[in-house]
Amino acid sequence: MTRLNWGMIGGGDGSQIGPVHRISATMDGFFTLRAGALDADPEKGRAFAQQIGIAPDRAYGDWREMLAGERNRPDRVDLVTVATPNATHYEITRAFLEAGIHVLCEKPMTVTVAEAEDIAATSARTGAICAVNYGYTGYPLVRHMRAMVARGELGRIRLCVVEFSHGFHADAADAENPRMRWRYDPAQAGLSGQFADCGIHALNMASFVTGENARELSADFLSAIASRKLEDDAMVNIRMDGGTRVRLWTSSVAVGSFHGLNIRVFGEQGGLRWAQQWPDQLHWTPLNGRTQVIERGAADSADAARATRIATGHSEGMLVAFANIYADLAEAIHARREGRAPDPAACHYPTAVDGLRSIAAIRAAVDSAAQGGDWVDARPPSLRP
Amino acid sequence: MTRLNWGMIGGGDGSQIGPVHRISATMDGFFTLRAGALDADPEKGRAFAQQIGIAPDRAYGDWREMLAGERNRPDRVDLVTVATPNATHYEITRAFLEAGIHVLCEKPMTVTVAEAEDIAATSARTGAICAVNYGYTGYPLVRHMRAMVARGELGRIRLCVVEFSHGFHADAADAENPRMRWRYDPAQAGLSGQFADCGIHALNMASFVTGENARELSADFLSAIASRKLEDDAMVNIRMDGGTRVRLWTSSVAVGSFHGLNIRVFGEQGGLRWAQQWPDQLHWTPLNGRTQVIERGAADSADAARATRIATGHSEGMLVAFANIYADLAEAIHARREGRAPDPAACHYPTAVDGLRSIAAIRAAVDSAAQGGDWVDARPPSLRP
Amino acid sequence: MTRLNWGMIGGGDGSQIGPVHRISATMDGFFTLRAGALDADPEKGRAFAQQIGIAPDRAYGDWREMLAGERNRPDRVDLVTVATPNATHYEITRAFLEAGIHVLCEKPMTVTVAEAEDIAATSARTGAICAVNYGYTGYPLVRHMRAMVARGELGRIRLCVVEFSHGFHADAADAENPRMRWRYDPAQAGLSGQFADCGIHALNMASFVTGENARELSADFLSAIASRKLEDDAMVNIRMDGGTRVRLWTSSVAVGSFHGLNIRVFGEQGGLRWAQQWPDQLHWTPLNGRTQVIERGAADSADAARATRIATGHSEGMLVAFANIYADLAEAIHARREGRAPDPAACHYPTAVDGLRSIAAIRAAVDSAAQGGDWVDARPPSLRP
Amino acid sequence: MTRLNWGMIGGGDGSQIGPVHRISATMDGFFTLRAGALDADPEKGRAFAQQIGIAPDRAYGDWREMLAGERNRPDRVDLVTVATPNATHYEITRAFLEAGIHVLCEKPMTVTVAEAEDIAATSARTGAICAVNYGYTGYPLVRHMRAMVARGELGRIRLCVVEFSHGFHADAADAENPRMRWRYDPAQAGLSGQFADCGIHALNMASFVTGENARELSADFLSAIASRKLEDDAMVNIRMDGGTRVRLWTSSVAVGSFHGLNIRVFGEQGGLRWAQQWPDQLHWTPLNGRTQVIERGAADSADAARATRIATGHSEGMLVAFANIYADLAEAIHARREGRAPDPAACHYPTAVDGLRSIAAIRAAVDSAAQGGDWVDARPPSLRP
Repeated sequence: MTRLNWGMIGGGDGSQIGPVHRISATMDGFFTLRAGALDADPEKGRAFAQQIGIAPDRAYGDWREMLAGERNRPDRVDLVTVATPNATHYEITRAFLEAGIHVLCEKPMTVTVAEAEDIAATSARTGAICAVNYGYTGYPLVRHMRAMVARGELGRIRLCVVEFSHGFHADAADAENPRMRWRYDPAQAGLSGQFADCGIHALNMASFVTGENARELSADFLSAIASRKLEDDAMVNIRMDGGTRVRLWTSSVAVGSFHGLNIRVFGEQGGLRWAQQWPDQLHWTPLNGRTQVIERGAADSADAARATRIATGHSEGMLVAFANIYADLAEAIHARREGRAPDPAACHYPTAVDGLRSIAAIRAAVDSAAQGGDWVDARPPSLRP
Repeated sequence: MTRLNWGMIGGGDGSQIGPVHRISATMDGFFTLRAGALDADPEKGRAFAQQIGIAPDRAYGDWREMLAGERNRPDRVDLVTVATPNATHYEITRAFLEAGIHVLCEKPMTVTVAEAEDIAATSARTGAICAVNYGYTGYPLVRHMRAMVARGELGRIRLCVVEFSHGFHADAADAENPRMRWRYDPAQAGLSGQFADCGIHALNMASFVTGENARELSADFLSAIASRKLEDDAMVNIRMDGGTRVRLWTSSVAVGSFHGLNIRVFGEQGGLRWAQQWPDQLHWTPLNGRTQVIERGAADSADAARATRIATGHSEGMLVAFANIYADLAEAIHARREGRAPDPAACHYPTAVDGLRSIAAIRAAVDSAAQGGDWVDARPPSLRP
Repeated sequence: MTRLNWGMIGGGDGSQIGPVHRISATMDGFFTLRAGALDADPEKGRAFAQQIGIAPDRAYGDWREMLAGERNRPDRVDLVTVATPNATHYEITRAFLEAGIHVLCEKPMTVTVAEAEDIAATSARTGAICAVNYGYTGYPLVRHMRAMVARGELGRIRLCVVEFSHGFHADAADAENPRMRWRYDPAQAGLSGQFADCGIHALNMASFVTGENARELSADFLSAIASRKLEDDAMVNIRMDGGTRVRLWTSSVAVGSFHGLNIRVFGEQGGLRWAQQWPDQLHWTPLNGRTQVIERGAADSADAARATRIATGHSEGMLVAFANIYADLAEAIHARREGRAPDPAACHYPTAVDGLRSIAAIRAAVDSAAQGGDWVDARPPSLRP
Repeated sequence: MTRLNWGMIGGGDGSQIGPVHRISATMDGFFTLRAGALDADPEKGRAFAQQIGIAPDRAYGDWREMLAGERNRPDRVDLVTVATPNATHYEITRAFLEAGIHVLCEKPMTVTVAEAEDIAATSARTGAICAVNYGYTGYPLVRHMRAMVARGELGRIRLCVVEFSHGFHADAADAENPRMRWRYDPAQAGLSGQFADCGIHALNMASFVTGENARELSADFLSAIASRKLEDDAMVNIRMDGGTRVRLWTSSVAVGSFHGLNIRVFGEQGGLRWAQQWPDQLHWTPLNGRTQVIERGAADSADAARATRIATGHSEGMLVAFANIYADLAEAIHARREGRAPDPAACHYPTAVDGLRSIAAIRAAVDSAAQGGDWVDARPPSLRP
């Protein structure tokens, strides 16, 4: 398989997510980092790009320069990862899609539903892939859960209980720290705090595993630290379009939780349980049977097998989950070039439509919470009947 | 300490809860079983009572006969446990309280709020104790959580996330089985199914630990098995009177859960986590600190110490939790006789007021769920300002 | 079932094990405490006996007085529990057996192998039961392990890895504390420290589960706290008479362990794993299959079912394990009276022969350790071919 | 930091360990794969090398060709990873060291102690680094354990209990499968089976964490599957040169274990517990205190901090552990070039001396087991006083 050319916007020196993308994108040898506009400061961005091995002529000062420089190169980047501040996602992603360059955009894809509709439409129109980095769906056993549900092993799904809780923002004494404060400031974070930041990962995962999407929802928001304008804790009940009820809790004041993204799926024929912090075991309880431990590496689905790199009994970790998103994108890009269908076991990256649904669900949750928990349509306008 | 005389109504041959009460009530030597009306069938009840060591003249055919027989004996029962079908709790409990005999009533204390108000008033008026068997609050580490909260170790409580989930009623093929069916039939179970059956334990525990009571709530009910008229799954958000938000999930279709009564308490200064299935460890995470494991037997509160019988590192179990409710009742009865205040570490049995609050909360949850999740006052009428 | 009359020697006021016996023996209503010589101080013993409900004429000053008082009563005790200092077990147990009174003796049954041989012979000759309180074998899931092995579900057993570790004696600054010191002093504790105190429980459990007995062993002893004359840590390899190899580790300086009695059994067809601290789950991995969780209450053997009192999903605890030893003894005593065979699911109490094998194994381990780990015959003389 | 040039010998198409090395070596951008002799079949090796991006002139047919081709290039490889069959390690490693090229050799470094002595001497003489891939020591929390011990937080170490157990070779029906069989065949595997294969990782980890080395040992070997000439299960007691006792169990017939590399360290002031399958949590119990959970990412040592790439609460996995070995080697190579001391937090790769000690310990264990468990000197001849 030829290596694909990859570029990054954002993720410069000091970024937390930048190195994660660089490790994950290149782990399997599918992508080589060839171009970047890595920093809000053009000079710092150019310097850092060269420091990590990007050629000087492709170490750009900003994304516009990068788009101009890349769009007509014969060896232009095949995929661009957008890891800039949230408010800029829309403009950058749209521009690269228009140029026919595939994009992996960090979540949230956009700030408003209208923007998200536009991105989804642009991706559809241009044929350029727009993926959104709900990276947790890359874990092999998350994919195995989806496969088990799709194969009907759980029967009809009744209920999905999902949470994403942490306590990293629980210290009131530190609440004015700018590093933490912006997430709860509408001027910087948009409509929603913790639900948009973490809860939406949980909703995406519930959708991914059940194969259903949110139809309507009822939300209860809490600002546990009173000075926060946006919620740091939320409970959302969701009626999915396939009939499953989702109960979603998310919190950033849950001292003792870390990245507690946990999912339980309950169907007519059994229940599943998985936790992001210990991702290499999946617990499966068939109806009237004993709980069984499915070890990563021993999960019997093509989806899990393709997403797994090392032997059972070792921890594989989050970098591999992200790498699976990139591996799926590589497969999708190659398949398009070769005019073939991609491997069905590698079609799991989250798309612009997933991103759009997320933004619509955030909007709906904000509205519901403001109305005391009224049930609100959670679908994007374009996807209502 | 003189042994107290104890009687039972219900809990006869074949009952599940009957032997649990008999083991727990007598474990510490505080009570001796002296009288009983153990079965709906008078003859079976008399025979079984004698079989388990009750004297023939105190082996009664029904509760009325027992009340008549006991009320004027010099050695009459000090305490009666009521473990009959739910609809009979009110009448029986009320009658014994009127006779000045202390009662431990199985939950739910009554069917209606009005009945519950009456029981609470009767207990207050007669001076007879009416306790309600929220037995899970008897676990030493549950009491230690309460003590830690009361001592201020968590600071102000912000949030309490509690669940009671099991999957024992998940098999649709078995849903018409009478043993299971009645719980979801309004004619037999009353207003609520799973919330009244299990969820209310979770709410009681949240109240017990935080020291706060439900003020208003919003409920979302689900009948995952469609033929059920009452809910088998519920999510309830609760605003407590001290400001804490409670998020409560309960389910009987959660395949893979057993008696999953789990509580997490999050305060300004730290978080607690405890699970009924593994009751001998409590996880405590101080703000910005490491999670610590508090072992039963090593918990530094008088409340936990008094409730503990065996050394750290052994499992103590649910029978001991129930025994602690009885131990507290014994202490309360002796203290009254001796005209002294009871040991503050042994004042933790749930009272008629707790029972009343529970019934009011069930009523509120049913109303809220029927109104699409509207926020409803959860307080009993007599306890509103 | 008629209640049996029960007596205690030792276990007076302040004793740790005394209350455990009293709760466990009476939990099911099989035994009533009728007589006791509870304290080394006759007056204190008599007073305490009456305080806990023993009639004054059966509240004895010492065991000789008790034997004299009981032996000719028509309502004499059916069973005596011996919970006195180790060095007195032999004399007391022997005397009561000679009187035809059944005995449950705390471990170790005796100090020397010769004494143990004598007890076993006396029990056989008189027909009086001598049971030894290896109480951990009373757990329902321990009995289920034994049943699974006996039914052949694991195939031939190859290996059993067992440990009993704690850290209660790890503090060198406290090593001279008499409460701790005596266990490592040959004058008070006999030949062995931690192996005799805890390790022998682990060996007994390995024997119980595998149905095999120690044939020869090799031991490595360590006094981690150098001032101790006896070992506080030991590793013992054992060749069982059925071919299974046992690897046994025991320690009292393992900070972070509590009563860590853990067993893993590996056979040709699968492996089992169980931990005393979380006794309500048993982990079973069939060869080439997934690990399954067997919940207490859902274990499919008559042995486990008979030993279980409460529903799946609650913790049952150690008191119930001990109660199962007493329940088996009640069944054995009744069966003898009624001239019938006891229920095979209730024949699991450890006998004088088990006690004898334990003493012989301790002797062998001490000898082996002294000889640098030489393999030593671990069988009692009377049980060698 | 300039990227270093890296080469591989072995690890070709179909190899399990090959991709792990490639991911781990390049994860941080410290090394670029420039040359390789990847397969026993020269043509397959050359083709595969080019397929994964190695230039044609550096895609070699065998290691001799590679050595000849690289040794005089100005851009020659800085480091060679040797991942060939065990019997070839010695010859290849020695040859590259003689050429002054640094080597990372898969374990076991050599087959015989004499060879290992020679490698250690050659490394010392030539100044070329010889590292051995005990990759599990790369986990951040393993390094933190070592740091805690070194800082004296546990006081003097008394005891270390370590195991490496799995059940992948438990199926007797599959024992003649060549993929499994060779490990228990002296002709192919050498002196020892499971102890050399897995147990030695456990011993290396005990040494790494305690900072002590094996002085003498006593071993008990078992061939649980009788047809095996070499052991598939072993228990080894080890007296370390600093006074710590190590108890090491390893097994390949432990059905229900996977890569169960677990370590517990017990010192005067506390105990540590860590498991390879869940590597992101370390359990620390201070003497007389509560067990605390140290999360990867929150461990307060420079060693752990340097070895950590992603935020607390995500699983980091084994690929990162291996990457840390490579990161240390990169630091060591750069430091030499720059004539400075390497960062002390990055000096943790296992050296030829560690490899030598391992081979000597395997030799000693084999001898001890053959002599019924006699204590045998475990030190290499060159390191005896």
